[in-house]
Amino acid sequence: VPATKAPRFDFRPAVPDVSMFPRRAWLRSVRQAIGSATDADLGYGDPRGVETLRRALADYLGRVRGVVADPARTVVTSGYTQSEGLVCRALAAAGARRIALEDPSDPEQRETAARAGLEVVPVGVDEGGIRVDELERTRADAVVVGPAHQFPTGAVMAGERRSELLAWLRSSDAIAIEDDYDAEYRYDRAPVGALQGLEPGRVVYAGSASKTLAPALRLGWLVLPAELVDAVGHEKHLADRGTARIEQYAFADFLARGELDRHLRRMRVRYRARRDALVDALHEAMPEVEVEGIAAGLHVTARLTDTDDERAIVDEAARRGIALESLDDYRTAPGSGSPTLLVGYGQSADSAIRPGIARLAEAIEAARGRA
Amino acid sequence: VPATKAPRFDFRPAVPDVSMFPRRAWLRSVRQAIGSATDADLGYGDPRGVETLRRALADYLGRVRGVVADPARTVVTSGYTQSEGLVCRALAAAGARRIALEDPSDPEQRETAARAGLEVVPVGVDEGGIRVDELERTRADAVVVGPAHQFPTGAVMAGERRSELLAWLRSSDAIAIEDDYDAEYRYDRAPVGALQGLEPGRVVYAGSASKTLAPALRLGWLVLPAELVDAVGHEKHLADRGTARIEQYAFADFLARGELDRHLRRMRVRYRARRDALVDALHEAMPEVEVEGIAAGLHVTARLTDTDDERAIVDEAARRGIALESLDDYRTAPGSGSPTLLVGYGQSADSAIRPGIARLAEAIEAARGRA
Repeated sequence: VPATKAPRFDFRPAVPDVSMFPRRAWLRSVRQAIGSATDADLGYGDPRGVETLRRALADYLGRVRGVVADPARTVVTSGYTQSEGLVCRALAAAGARRIALEDPSDPEQRETAARAGLEVVPVGVDEGGIRVDELERTRADAVVVGPAHQFPTGAVMAGERRSELLAWLRSSDAIAIEDDYDAEYRYDRAPVGALQGLEPGRVVYAGSASKTLAPALRLGWLVLPAELVDAVGHEKHLADRGTARIEQYAFADFLARGELDRHLRRMRVRYRARRDALVDALHEAMPEVEVEGIAAGLHVTARLTDTDDERAIVDEAARRGIALESLDDYRTAPGSGSPTLLVGYGQSADSAIRPGIARLAEAIEAARGRA
Repeated sequence: VPATKAPRFDFRPAVPDVSMFPRRAWLRSVRQAIGSATDADLGYGDPRGVETLRRALADYLGRVRGVVADPARTVVTSGYTQSEGLVCRALAAAGARRIALEDPSDPEQRETAARAGLEVVPVGVDEGGIRVDELERTRADAVVVGPAHQFPTGAVMAGERRSELLAWLRSSDAIAIEDDYDAEYRYDRAPVGALQGLEPGRVVYAGSASKTLAPALRLGWLVLPAELVDAVGHEKHLADRGTARIEQYAFADFLARGELDRHLRRMRVRYRARRDALVDALHEAMPEVEVEGIAAGLHVTARLTDTDDERAIVDEAARRGIALESLDDYRTAPGSGSPTLLVGYGQSADSAIRPGIARLAEAIEAARGRA
């Protein structure tokens, strides 16, 4: 949900820097798409998406994310939210009843799954990702995980945890939906490949252009186990008869010309510098705060002292023109964990980071003084 | 569903002529949209759609269709299918249980409503539109109607029938979803205004660009009674967080520059000529057949003699390279009415109409000979 008034310091998580959106390259791809579209291309076509884009995505995801991808198992969607809804409805139609979701996670993910008729079971997350020991007790038919940079904790799923999760999928005959959130923004070393690459028959891969290019595009994609393709294609047909096709052809051209790779290279440099500046500023202005989740993505978590009131701090910060969020916004049981702020650097101007964090430190002091 | 192989003569209904899609004007609008988009425009924004498009649509619909429109009650969607799903889910969430649908109608409309959790009650259609006397016995909470050119019968809802329908809406405290299908293609006189204009508090207006411009755009819109706006906006948010926004800005520009009006003026001339040629060819080649539903839209109905087998004729035609459909494809109880073919002229080349219909007459003769 967008802020109604632009804050002076914008540290909201999950907001990418769209000022760098490569308008010229995108327009070039749209021009190419409109110019070369046949009459058939301008019709309804396959609800699962246009063939050239599914091919380009399979290439890209195999190369960049280690996804075992095949155009025939790739479905183009209108973003992650729709992707999750389509898969949940297809799973429900096939008899699934319970789905585990990480806690904390985006409440919209839970609502989407519940709306599909699935019972949602929250499962804890620690620094290694989803707690598979908890998952084992759920008897869930499916699970949604964010191994690359779990939102909002920022945890990157460790190798051993991945193995445990895959073992659970096999032993319970379950399906995982891998929300490959923030995967393209891994800063300090090469990103870990997608979980899907290790078990393509049990993991649904879900990605989108919202964080890498712009939310306005509403472009997402799924790579599915073979037995889910028809059901998800049917759900997509019922949902909207397919995603806007000129944009699909444009995105296929954009990918094929290497424009996404180029854009991501530029953005990684930019975001890494911002992250470094943010982490330094946080350490300096509030040494008592523990900064985590820095390995990837567009935000870090800042764990406060146990007596801090994260809601009061967020409110105090808002009064001082600082937009940010707290972990409680995403917990199923607010107040159940250490008070933690989510500090995004996706769209902070570089020069605003130090003064913004200094001001945040003042807000924290003020909230503490009032408590 | 697209034909896997292009037929030699394409008389499928509901298929517009996309060869006339105004590529240059559309590209110009996309260029304008990309060039002038602010950072906020490239974000998620309001799931109900971008303000400039909602304003442009309200203007257009008020002017061209007599819709009592207001940007605040207008929601941009990804086409009619999504529109119907959003409204049905919002109605179901508000306690609606039964929805009446015209019979015959597109089976997808019925599936969409059923998927939203509503019980679907079929109601007959005659030459004046939906049978309100039947509707009165359904105790439905809502109804889907196509007053401008009912699909597939081609009936245009008469004035008295409109009054009866509105009276039913009021007396049963029900909501109508007006599928303003083919409304922009009314040939012999000025189109009747939308039903919504007579009762904006009880009629949901649903339109799309699929038949007027191209299905590939996946652009649709709703004008809602005030009390449904928040619920439908919430459903849209859950469905996909909003329709692709660059396309929305482009369409707003396209509408504001009068490009849709210009395109429709061109297409009306073209389609009317094709319709006239088709009706003449049908009368000539098969004088025993009754041609109806000619006032509007992109297809006519051809009522066969009572002993004809419409399925056998469609199959025989397919073997001869002619694609068309029959009314039974859309009836809830196949075989329950007069055998009737649906003969579309949306994308027949002008020169193909006479030879195509001559060939269809041969197919009918062959099917009769075999019976």
